[in-house]
Amino acid sequence: MTDVLLRGGLPWGLGAPADILVRDGRIARVIPRGRPPGPAAPAAETPRTPEAFGAPGAMVFDVEGQLILPGLVEAHCHLDKTLYGGPWVPHSADDTLADRIATDLGRRAELGVPSVARIGALLRQMSEAGTTHVRTHTDIDPAAGLRGVEAVREAAAGCHVDVRQVAFPQHGLLTNPGTAELLEEALKSGVEAVGGLDPAGIDRDPVRHLDLIFGLAGRYGTHLDLHLHDGGSLGGWELELIIERTKALGLGGKVAVSHAYALGQLDEAYQDRLVQGLAEADVAVVTAAVYNFPVPPIKKLRAAGVTVAVGHDGIRDLWGPYGSGDMLERAMHVAYRSTFRRDDDIELALEAATVGGARALGLDDYGLAPGDRADLVVVPAGSPAEAVVVHPGRTLVMKDGVVLHN
Amino acid sequence: MTDVLLRGGLPWGLGAPADILVRDGRIARVIPRGRPPGPAAPAAETPRTPEAFGAPGAMVFDVEGQLILPGLVEAHCHLDKTLYGGPWVPHSADDTLADRIATDLGRRAELGVPSVARIGALLRQMSEAGTTHVRTHTDIDPAAGLRGVEAVREAAAGCHVDVRQVAFPQHGLLTNPGTAELLEEALKSGVEAVGGLDPAGIDRDPVRHLDLIFGLAGRYGTHLDLHLHDGGSLGGWELELIIERTKALGLGGKVAVSHAYALGQLDEAYQDRLVQGLAEADVAVVTAAVYNFPVPPIKKLRAAGVTVAVGHDGIRDLWGPYGSGDMLERAMHVAYRSTFRRDDDIELALEAATVGGARALGLDDYGLAPGDRADLVVVPAGSPAEAVVVHPGRTLVMKDGVVLHN
Repeated sequence: MTDVLLRGGLPWGLGAPADILVRDGRIARVIPRGRPPGPAAPAAETPRTPEAFGAPGAMVFDVEGQLILPGLVEAHCHLDKTLYGGPWVPHSADDTLADRIATDLGRRAELGVPSVARIGALLRQMSEAGTTHVRTHTDIDPAAGLRGVEAVREAAAGCHVDVRQVAFPQHGLLTNPGTAELLEEALKSGVEAVGGLDPAGIDRDPVRHLDLIFGLAGRYGTHLDLHLHDGGSLGGWELELIIERTKALGLGGKVAVSHAYALGQLDEAYQDRLVQGLAEADVAVVTAAVYNFPVPPIKKLRAAGVTVAVGHDGIRDLWGPYGSGDMLERAMHVAYRSTFRRDDDIELALEAATVGGARALGLDDYGLAPGDRADLVVVPAGSPAEAVVVHPGRTLVMKDGVVLHN
Repeated sequence: MTDVLLRGGLPWGLGAPADILVRDGRIARVIPRGRPPGPAAPAAETPRTPEAFGAPGAMVFDVEGQLILPGLVEAHCHLDKTLYGGPWVPHSADDTLADRIATDLGRRAELGVPSVARIGALLRQMSEAGTTHVRTHTDIDPAAGLRGVEAVREAAAGCHVDVRQVAFPQHGLLTNPGTAELLEEALKSGVEAVGGLDPAGIDRDPVRHLDLIFGLAGRYGTHLDLHLHDGGSLGGWELELIIERTKALGLGGKVAVSHAYALGQLDEAYQDRLVQGLAEADVAVVTAAVYNFPVPPIKKLRAAGVTVAVGHDGIRDLWGPYGSGDMLERAMHVAYRSTFRRDDDIELALEAATVGGARALGLDDYGLAPGDRADLVVVPAGSPAEAVVVHPGRTLVMKDGVVLHN
């Protein structure tokens, strides 16, 4: 495997330009400018040649003045549903959740969903935009069986993106007999997480719904990531149930709540209690900042130590036509809807799209330190806030030490 | 002036591919495919040569399958404040309106605001993205005088964008003695519209504030475009005052309310009454869909016949770092925040960014019909909704019959 030398970029958080040497898929060294590349070499005048780094055959990329980020983490999407890369499909559902579900069920066969080709097209687009890891919620129901899981696996095998699936009961769990057994089958087959969907609002029996999916996560040692659109006090109470179960089963660090609109709707005092509870139980919150729906209080969540991650939700599918697959653009939406204007606030959205996602997904060796996996993205921006606000095209994307786009 | 022939594009609303012949800055002919280009020529087999259109010297652009829009109209921005094209400036105000105003006043000298160079850079970017007309609110106060007006004029003179200014009392009108006289001076010098700012919430005397600016608009025969952030019942009541004055002075078609957050916050019945009042008085609503602020009910406004326009608000300035100058991207924000998923709904946002803006600004001969000014934008998209959602780079931009970007 060829060594790679990235010269003169600005590794996020380092505060100085540096050279990064990548070897065997890992970050081997990060040498801030001003320090000699080799242990015995003299300081300032040392030429930054591959030889000076002890890597004579290295491929060299000069990225002076550009920001270097760890790989972007898409923490919530629906690859299996996407129509990306195909012709424009006008949205056909009316403005109700029920009709969107019915349309989804009714038209997926006609449109060839899930499509390995469409999923692959989207994954390639994501990769070009610097996404190295994806968590995707894959529909599982008696009609579709595990076809979605298989399609995502097949597409992912042809792309340089680490794709992790959530077995997602989109069309009901308790209300759709046979689904629970299929979720278990998916987990047995290696799917990385179990999902859930509005245990009260959609599945009508929150306690049994949660007991079922938490039971599966506990038994199979998997992650759990639950869609919670239920708002107000109903959603708040369901968050209490989730916190209780996470603590009781010792699943801290492996549980995420996606959307969690209720957090953005409740009064300050109740919001504070829930944020505290999420922090204590180590339950992550995943937001997408879609449409006009409430965005959870990211600043407050982070101040309390809660992991916050971000994703697109649907991208160009029967649920809606929006989404590009670019996680810096998505981070912009999150920052914008959070009314973040200051650089350090905007940086919270970038953190959610990188380290926050990595924490929620349980990624090992993620980051910009020596020894971390060399999943790197170079952005022609001088600061993290500028990278989010402008989200310019990526200069270079590397996964496991291999330069994929440049 | 050289004739221009755009071949095979999809003029918005025509429902068929067509050839467009541009002559002397105007759309000379729009010939749907299938019809002969010349009056006497045979139908289908006629070659689409410039000669066949009676325009032997025409420049030819083949834009098969691409959408053709009239020039995009930026109906609300603040060119004079922009830092666009310069280095990234971290936002320095805290999260209050008062501190944003104080920061604006305190730092504009240090940062060289208004800057002819920055304004020019932004106008060129806007033009590249297909914007042909801009309404900009220019700060006028005793400290800055008319420097902003002059800077915008100087920058606009070097760009192929039709820029119309609003004399804007950003730092108070009644509360800032000397401002009213300067507004009048601006109108005398040819500024196209008079502005206002939260007559109650900021200027503390809504009746006198409104009487003053409506009086100026009436006397000088100008347009009026007022910032109204005041929310809830206060903002609703101010809308009533605006409707009353527009009717009493016969200023229908020349008055716009920008932001109008209150419209998105009031109960349905009151909202309906105000929408009806705006329609009767012919008062336009201009939205920017910024941050997390309420977006007016666009579908309801359009159904009632109210003109809806759209703009960026601030772009990269001391009020916030966001904004690109691309009106298709801005229309996407408007559609997204309006939870528009269906093509015909999304098209309402495009309408606001084109004909809605043209109507609000009082543009003559705007559109895609023969005789209209040849302000045209070609977008590599197969439908209006796709153009908004994806907002791909523009293939061609023409202003007054001259191809500016291609």
